[in-house]
Amino acid sequence: MVATDFESYVSVFDPDDPVFALHRGGKMAIESTVPLRDAADLAQSYTPGVARVCEAIAADPEVAHDLTWVSNTVAVVTDGTAVLGLGDIGPAAAMPVMEGKAVLFKQFAGIDAVPVALGTTDADEIVDTLARLAPTFGGINLEDISSPRCFDIERRLMERVDIPVFHDDQHGTAIVTLAALYNAVELTDRSLSETKVVISGAGAAGVAIEALLRSAGVTRISVVDRRGVICPSRADLTGVKRHLAEQTADWARPGTIADALTDADVFIGVSGGSVAEEAVSRMADDAIIFAMANPNPEISPEIAGKYARVVATGRSDFANQINNVLVFPGIFRGALDVRATEISDEMKRAAATAIAQLVGDDLAAEYVIPSPFDPRVAQTVAKAVTDAARREGLARRPY
Amino acid sequence: MVATDFESYVSVFDPDDPVFALHRGGKMAIESTVPLRDAADLAQSYTPGVARVCEAIAADPEVAHDLTWVSNTVAVVTDGTAVLGLGDIGPAAAMPVMEGKAVLFKQFAGIDAVPVALGTTDADEIVDTLARLAPTFGGINLEDISSPRCFDIERRLMERVDIPVFHDDQHGTAIVTLAALYNAVELTDRSLSETKVVISGAGAAGVAIEALLRSAGVTRISVVDRRGVICPSRADLTGVKRHLAEQTADWARPGTIADALTDADVFIGVSGGSVAEEAVSRMADDAIIFAMANPNPEISPEIAGKYARVVATGRSDFANQINNVLVFPGIFRGALDVRATEISDEMKRAAATAIAQLVGDDLAAEYVIPSPFDPRVAQTVAKAVTDAARREGLARRPY
Repeated sequence: MVATDFESYVSVFDPDDPVFALHRGGKMAIESTVPLRDAADLAQSYTPGVARVCEAIAADPEVAHDLTWVSNTVAVVTDGTAVLGLGDIGPAAAMPVMEGKAVLFKQFAGIDAVPVALGTTDADEIVDTLARLAPTFGGINLEDISSPRCFDIERRLMERVDIPVFHDDQHGTAIVTLAALYNAVELTDRSLSETKVVISGAGAAGVAIEALLRSAGVTRISVVDRRGVICPSRADLTGVKRHLAEQTADWARPGTIADALTDADVFIGVSGGSVAEEAVSRMADDAIIFAMANPNPEISPEIAGKYARVVATGRSDFANQINNVLVFPGIFRGALDVRATEISDEMKRAAATAIAQLVGDDLAAEYVIPSPFDPRVAQTVAKAVTDAARREGLARRPY
Repeated sequence: MVATDFESYVSVFDPDDPVFALHRGGKMAIESTVPLRDAADLAQSYTPGVARVCEAIAADPEVAHDLTWVSNTVAVVTDGTAVLGLGDIGPAAAMPVMEGKAVLFKQFAGIDAVPVALGTTDADEIVDTLARLAPTFGGINLEDISSPRCFDIERRLMERVDIPVFHDDQHGTAIVTLAALYNAVELTDRSLSETKVVISGAGAAGVAIEALLRSAGVTRISVVDRRGVICPSRADLTGVKRHLAEQTADWARPGTIADALTDADVFIGVSGGSVAEEAVSRMADDAIIFAMANPNPEISPEIAGKYARVVATGRSDFANQINNVLVFPGIFRGALDVRATEISDEMKRAAATAIAQLVGDDLAAEYVIPSPFDPRVAQTVAKAVTDAARREGLARRPY
């Protein structure tokens, strides 16, 4: 989601690198969950016995959810156009990330996720292809699809299918950011409605963060791109940036990122750029800095710590790692469990609240977000999401 | 592939049926093959470590075959239009068969197969969709797609992608039939070139059997559909049946199936119809009957046994089960192992020969084809297929 300089640290196959050894043969496999020892087993799992199961589904499609693996599956889909910070490296080179995501779905939420790398970057073709694949999967996780195409693809696909569609680079990032923000705001005795937020980056993550924070009650938001604050007076804005300008018009004022950061309470970096210390120094007391670019945060934790009470990054080697893995396994687990037709804003906010609440009484400047390896996370998020889906009438399985 | 009367024996969900209990939750799962215990593991299998693997593939696409699971995967794809003998029951109801096939790929050949059920029956859309999915898989197994659409879909898809495409209802059936025929002909001291063969059924299986037997040297072939022998004088033929008429024109004569069976050496049933005993009685001495419809063979084994020396069916409860599971795991194993660009006729014949030769000195009227559970089969087929692919220059991995 965030432009970085991964490029700088390796660009060739290094057989001595343990990461390459780990990746040999890929990171995942199919396993059979039924016995296949003899002809009797074959006659139950395959022909002729399987015909009875097919007939039962043909007679009542609802039973498919109990009698196939579909309801427990998620397609992890990319076109390879915005892979990590590497950019448009194509579908084949994106596959290791999709596999990695798939094994995390399994590890954290027991979901059978299938990596799908598409040989097209045409939005119409992507939407058509995935709509035709819908009977194969219980949900669709879009991944590493470049902005602004990702917005259109997600919206149109949601109109075409009745299973959840979730672009993780947008919503996973937004949800985990909101979770950390809930706790950081509480720790610093702020109210969300008065908190002044600067989002650096107007790609997939920035746009989704702006929308989710707004839906959660944050109104004082400025979004900054390379040319400065996004606001209606700018002549260079189209599409989603034009929409961002309209959304934030009541608050955002023209200027540079340094102007925007003056007296700001919160910096949220999803850009991969770098912010000068002088600009950081203008922030309000007890500032909150979420500098999430990987591997190089927009503001280094050392500098951020000089000016902010709460500092979070996307990295595992600093406190407060803001990591999507806190979100996507649990949110899909919940959506699949109740066969939700979509993942709504209320479900997203419920997930953020659940993540934030896990911190509980341990809330501290260095602990505003749980660890990705906190074993409670996925289950807690799933429960919150299923409850929200039921409240909204989006749950097809009502229990 | 074959029309049957499965419909007659059950059409409702029976919770006491052990087949339904077996199918709860589906028959397969994803498993991770890498450790994910802590942040250090995550940093290798996922970000930031995975970026190095992505970069290596972007720099040299060949390494993707070692560093992802793609080269070991096959998509098992249906549109749900010709499922077993149940016909056009749709993609959701077809999924249990695709899952069954996927677990057989794993069990017999260690292949990670992913079931894909398409929500379209339009040939153009199916071809487009699968062509766009090509970067995701090492091969494509088409399954239970109705005739004659299946021929066009397979041919056009093969032109679009550089991975093996194999419609199992056609070629798997044809290969295992040829394997059994090799042995039955040997047992009855016939030469293939003089053997008179009647194929009942001009759907996916019948068309492919005719083509493969012809490529193996059988020339005296008549194909029969519900209206009798397919030959150029018939005015009702179009497309693939017209082609069949032209292919068989030197031998086939107008008439009924009883006419065709008079003095015929071999009956191959892939129609689901039923053949009168009087017609069977007209066959040559030491006749060979492969009545492969499931669950009801075109000629019952009891009646076939009265007139034929060799009797085979598609059923596991009689001798000589002609079962595609002898073919598809090994043929894809071989094709994937050498990264074959296609599965050629020579590779198909090599697979048939390998299966036939496994019978060896045990050849007998009741044993012209190995058991599906013979543990040597998949590996032996794979070896023959890789050798053939290398001979033909279709192997991208030369070792």
